[in-house]
Order: sequence, then structure tokens, then C-alpha cells
Amino acid sequence: MGQSLPHSRGIHQGTPTMAAIIDSEVFLAFSTYATIVILKMMFMSFLTAYFRITRKAFANIEDVHTHMAKTPEEKKKMLRVNEDVERVRRCHLNDLENIIPFVLIGLLYTLTGPELSTALLHFRLFVGSRFVHTIVYVTSMPQPSRGLSWIVGIGAIVSMAYHVLNTVLRL
Amino acid sequence: MGQSLPHSRGIHQGTPTMAAIIDSEVFLAFSTYATIVILKMMFMSFLTAYFRITRKAFANIEDVHTHMAKTPEEKKKMLRVNEDVERVRRCHLNDLENIIPFVLIGLLYTLTGPELSTALLHFRLFVGSRFVHTIVYVTSMPQPSRGLSWIVGIGAIVSMAYHVLNTVLRL
Amino acid sequence: MGQSLPHSRGIHQGTPTMAAIIDSEVFLAFSTYATIVILKMMFMSFLTAYFRITRKAFANIEDVHTHMAKTPEEKKKMLRVNEDVERVRRCHLNDLENIIPFVLIGLLYTLTGPELSTALLHFRLFVGSRFVHTIVYVTSMPQPSRGLSWIVGIGAIVSMAYHVLNTVLRL
Repeated sequence: MGQSLPHSRGIHQGTPTMAAIIDSEVFLAFSTYATIVILKMMFMSFLTAYFRITRKAFANIEDVHTHMAKTPEEKKKMLRVNEDVERVRRCHLNDLENIIPFVLIGLLYTLTGPELSTALLHFRLFVGSRFVHTIVYVTSMPQPSRGLSWIVGIGAIVSMAYHVLNTVLRL
Repeated sequence: MGQSLPHSRGIHQGTPTMAAIIDSEVFLAFSTYATIVILKMMFMSFLTAYFRITRKAFANIEDVHTHMAKTPEEKKKMLRVNEDVERVRRCHLNDLENIIPFVLIGLLYTLTGPELSTALLHFRLFVGSRFVHTIVYVTSMPQPSRGLSWIVGIGAIVSMAYHVLNTVLRL
Repeated sequence: MGQSLPHSRGIHQGTPTMAAIIDSEVFLAFSTYATIVILKMMFMSFLTAYFRITRKAFANIEDVHTHMAKTPEEKKKMLRVNEDVERVRRCHLNDLENIIPFVLIGLLYTLTGPELSTALLHFRLFVGSRFVHTIVYVTSMPQPSRGLSWIVGIGAIVSMAYHVLNTVLRL
């Protein structure tokens, strides 16, 4: 069915049923924003690695390269806690605590068939707020900038959750 | 198709295909319980903030309000580890380690088309066990109450995972 | 529809629509690999408990059994940080940071209708890399074994994310 439509796209390679699900504009938008914000979250791993190497503060003895420290005693000295590393790790954990609920509740929200414009507003507010949150956190900007960016993201999730429960509630 | 049925509900605003997916009683129940337990998990962030403020134990220097500590030295003293805060944070991390697997495996389980009564049993046991787990953890109740509530949740996930693998296994 | 086909299986108990979605070979493979790798992640909780008990290093005072320590002072001594426990916990957190993005992006990737052989390559590389990662991490094998197994998993996720964005991009 889907393959013969004039607006047929690459996503119609699957079964017609799958194409029909994913063919909704809301689902396409959700997939786009969810993928982008998950990639942003995964980027935090690389930022942690960067700070661990530049600050010479490692968590595992096998991670200390031989050209940094030769003797086991020198290596052990580099198993230390560094505030810049911990800051990035807290930011990463905060991402896990917020971005994963967004993707999971956002998926259920998308399946309830919301208006495209309302859905886009939620997705854009959330994804925007998380990029701001990361920049504010990593560069230690003064409060309430981090708190505000965090609460905007929470607000978008709670609003979608309210819409889901309002639509599907079956206890 | 869905819009004209007498039991038509708000969820039928989407494409007919999406309405048909989400129109299953199991999917409605899953969406309800998944949303509730994710909201419960997100509530832990607010509990952490509450304990950080009342215990005056912060992780970031910019989080210490000026009316709490004026000089930088006073502020630095409030960057400390507090056992009540750490307890809530461990509880939150335990939620991430258990609630997210529940939602992901629960979604796959729901799509295999289980009996409604069996599915409801799994969803209710899991969500109930996590509310008990949080109360027991935060109020430091004696063991084995926390261990038991944790293992009931694990049992519900493993049982659903077994059902999924039994139905779809394709390596 | 699905129930009458000769290759009808247990998954056709649901609504025809759900059966049709899950009836794709890619979706069956995704469900299998996602379930296995989530179970592997959940296993880390048991490994943490094992190391906490054998190393006598607990996080909560109520977790110290009376036959291990009788007086409150003895119990408090067992609230300590142990390197073996911390290593397993870091491995578990790394699982959360990588396996959950795999399942979420893998689900969106599956819905775009990729070739079965390409999809299987991504799923197998990722799941294989995470089992190697855990063994290498817990047994403290020298680098770059852990780094390599981690980057293979990241590569599989980024490749699927690229495919999703290439197919569905709607900003």
C-alpha cells in the first residue's frame, strides 16, 4: 500500500503496517528529536574521557597510559577524583535521569496521536532545554540557569505524561 | 475506521493503524503503568533536591544560595556528602537500573499479545514493588524488606523477558 | 489475518495489527537481542551484591547482617568503599549509558524497515561487544581491550542513529 503513494519515502521498505505507523508526521518528528537527544547524551562519555585525560584523573589503573606514569606508584596517584570530571559525570547522570524518561513517555505520547504542532512544541522545548542544561552545567554558569533549563525539560515530560494518562488510563 | 466505532476515544485521532495498536487493552494498561512508574522515578530528583537543601549538602558551588553562605569559604563547606542525600541518590539509581528495563521489556512483552490478566499481574506486581522499595529505602526500614521488594520487581521483569524470548527468539 | 497463515506463531494471539508489526523478521531479531542484553545489564545488580557480601563493603547500615557484625560500631566499619565493588558498579553504569541508547535507537531503527542482514550485523556486534566489555572490565584486563569493546558498541549505535536520521529527519 505505502509503496505506491506519491510521497513514498525510504521508510516504506518495511512491511506496509510498519510503514503506516512510522508514516505519521508526529512519529517522524519524535524519531528525529529522540535520536538527536540520545546522541547528545552519549556524547557525554567522550567529554568524560577528554576531562579524565587532560586532568589526569582516572578511575581504573589499567586506563593510565605508560607514557603518563611508569611505575605502579605513579599510576596509583592518578586514580583520583577531579571536580571537572565529576561535574561532567553528574551532568551525564542527570541526562540519564531525564532523557530516557523523555524518550519512553514521548513514545507513548506519540502513539496516542497528538496534534503535530503540540507534539513539536513538547519535543523542541525538551531537546532545547537539555542542550542548554549541558552547556550551563559544564561551564558552571550561575544559578538559576541550570535549574530553569532542568525544570523546562521536566515540564515537557510531565505534560506529555498527563496527556498519556488522560487518554489511556486503565488501572 | 476507529473514529466511527461507538467506543471511540481520544486516542483515535491518529492514523487508523496507530489507533489499532494502542487500542489493545494490554497496551492501554502498559502505557498507564509505565507512565506512572516513570513519574515515580522522576520524583526522586525532587526528593534529592529537598534533602540537599534541608541537609545543606550540595554537589555544585553555584547551587549554594547566598542567604545560606556568603563568603566563598562558607560555600565550599557546603559541598559535602550527606548520608540522607546519598541514600535518596542510591534509590534513584536503583530505579534507573530496574524501572527502565521494566518499560523496555514490558513494551516488547505487550507487543507479543499476552493475556490481559497475566499482563496486569506483571505490571501491578512490578509497579507496587517499586513504590514499596522506595518507601522502605528512604525510611531505612530493616532488611529483608528492601531486598524482597527489589526481587519481586526483578522477578516480574525476568518473567516477561522469558515470555518474550519464548515467543520471538531469533538469534 | 495472521492467525490463518501457515507460519502462524504464538505471537499472533494479539490483535492482527500487532501481529503484523511484530511479524517482521527484523523486529523478532531486535526483540531477542534487546531482551538478552537488558538481562545481561540486570545481572550486574547480582554481581554487585555478590562483591558487597564477599568483600564486606556495604552502602546501607541495614544491609549488614547480624552474623557479620553484632555491635553498631562493627556494622559501621563495613560501610566502606571497596575497589572491586566500585569496579562492578562503574561497569553497570556504563551499561546503562550504552545499552539503553541501543534499545531505544534500535527500536526506531527497526521501525524504519532495514535489511535483515544489515540489522542483524548491528545487533550482534553491539550485544557481542557488551559481553566482551563486561568480562574485560570485571577482570581488569589491560587496555585497549575495554576501550575497543566500548567503541564497537558506540559505533553500532551511531550507525543505526545515522540510518534513522537519514530516513525520518523532520526537524
